[in-house]
Amino acid sequence: MTEPGSAEAPVAIDAMGSDGAPAPEVAAALACRARGQAVTLVGEREALTGAGAPPPIDVVDAPHRVSMADEPAMALRRSPQASVRVAARLVAHGRAGALVSAGSTGAIIGAALLELGRVPGVRRPAVSARLPVPGTDGVILIDAGGTPDAGVAAMVGFARMGVALAAGDDGPVPPDARSPGPVPRVGLLNVGAEPGRGNRAVRGAHVALAHMEGFIGNVEPADVLAGVADVVVADAFTGNVLLKTIEAMATAAGLDRHGDAGALLLGVRAPIVVAHGSAEAATLEAAVGAAADAAASGVSARVADRVASRAQTVGSGTPR
Amino acid sequence: MTEPGSAEAPVAIDAMGSDGAPAPEVAAALACRARGQAVTLVGEREALTGAGAPPPIDVVDAPHRVSMADEPAMALRRSPQASVRVAARLVAHGRAGALVSAGSTGAIIGAALLELGRVPGVRRPAVSARLPVPGTDGVILIDAGGTPDAGVAAMVGFARMGVALAAGDDGPVPPDARSPGPVPRVGLLNVGAEPGRGNRAVRGAHVALAHMEGFIGNVEPADVLAGVADVVVADAFTGNVLLKTIEAMATAAGLDRHGDAGALLLGVRAPIVVAHGSAEAATLEAAVGAAADAAASGVSARVADRVASRAQTVGSGTPR
Repeated sequence: MTEPGSAEAPVAIDAMGSDGAPAPEVAAALACRARGQAVTLVGEREALTGAGAPPPIDVVDAPHRVSMADEPAMALRRSPQASVRVAARLVAHGRAGALVSAGSTGAIIGAALLELGRVPGVRRPAVSARLPVPGTDGVILIDAGGTPDAGVAAMVGFARMGVALAAGDDGPVPPDARSPGPVPRVGLLNVGAEPGRGNRAVRGAHVALAHMEGFIGNVEPADVLAGVADVVVADAFTGNVLLKTIEAMATAAGLDRHGDAGALLLGVRAPIVVAHGSAEAATLEAAVGAAADAAASGVSARVADRVASRAQTVGSGTPR
Repeated sequence: MTEPGSAEAPVAIDAMGSDGAPAPEVAAALACRARGQAVTLVGEREALTGAGAPPPIDVVDAPHRVSMADEPAMALRRSPQASVRVAARLVAHGRAGALVSAGSTGAIIGAALLELGRVPGVRRPAVSARLPVPGTDGVILIDAGGTPDAGVAAMVGFARMGVALAAGDDGPVPPDARSPGPVPRVGLLNVGAEPGRGNRAVRGAHVALAHMEGFIGNVEPADVLAGVADVVVADAFTGNVLLKTIEAMATAAGLDRHGDAGALLLGVRAPIVVAHGSAEAATLEAAVGAAADAAASGVSARVADRVASRAQTVGSGTPR
């Protein structure tokens, strides 16, 4: 079986995703091509040609799109030819190494599950964002905007995937490894330090995470920005509010946004980068770069493998 | 019947509330007294005297405290002499005009309901904060940290209370008034503009608020900071994360915090100001000032009256 997400294959761009689609996607594709990054644009061929995507840009025709107003699951089932689904299918078949989309996050996750399938041990894929915290490579926030109301078990999964991502690109750890490096510190986004604080989902997640190696307890927004945790676990709604508030305040204060290159979806076997709906060409170009880097590093498969092996050993006392 | 919250009565300070209690509370009381603001300290008499509260500071003995680790409802029922409950009782009996506490918000709300009683039409009292948005007097965020998982009906109540607060201190509007001034713009904190976005509670609140006068739909954090709404409605958990992230980013960026004077609890008949657990003397002194101002303006009773009259006329087509 071909492993999806190979580093040599082009990056598929969902050309119908962003609010201004397909113009930013076509411009990003041309910019990528100019610096030698192979890309495939997936969307309505006529619209793409009209927006200036001549050869040598590779175009795969996908006549439908999922809009922000659609209910994602229903729209995807109804439209096997929706651009985000066709793009995910290219990745599943090894014709693309990664996927970038600025469309609805729900539709991206739905397309990934339909075309790439589920990873054992992953209840819900989740969006991981890197928060620009001084003195760090970016604190990992997960779920930064994937599935609202995912529940306690899913949040435990987010913690595991975040740890696997934070543990770095040292390759899969063999089961008998005894020196896996420092254990990432995992915090639970909350409104106070005490275990009983927060809403039902967060209180439940605290109980479920209490014995996880590396769990440091609740973290408030100030703690997150102080870098006390390597991984911050949140439900998608609260995580997205945190992320968007940090971004909005950074913009208001004139702070450097550290180059927003989209957020990596975790819990699928191939790199999928989720960009803002408002993304312009430069942001999408950076997202393609992030997707290509992720494909080269094999991070998505590594996270999936770790979570899957973890799922098999839960309760066995194995340290990781 | 005495209306609670009279302007002439002293402000009751829960002296056992803050993380450093009672030292900051005692220092704040002395500072208030020095500028002619009458206050009553409520807490364990010996501890207060030890912390430097001699006459002429009025002290009411309350031997128990509710800590952040306690489950508030149970602790309050078990301790009629808990400081926050005794302080709320002083307000209920007209011996204090307002209450300031830096204790657990859940305990403050519980004490208010036990001692001051429920307001007709108010499902849950809520914390209203003023977000420092340039060009405004502060955008009202409600609920900024009161009751997590309050539900859709409570969120509709938050919107009504926020509108009553934003409508200004022009006194109660008589039922036949036809020119009540501009209608406050009410936004629902969310992660996208479309009505179907967000978690279950927020999607439900959107449906319930859709026909409310002044409702402008979903607002994202950047919209909130751009001042597009006068009132931002949120569940307590998300609202508190928004508030704390704005505060943490403002601190990190060296921005003016606009003098944090605590947040006014709405949906009770007397002014109750909730301060941070980490509050120091200067913050508590400012909170006492805010509480005294609220008592003088009669805002708490005005909001309660408007929500109560609104509850009687729901569905009757009355414009306010």
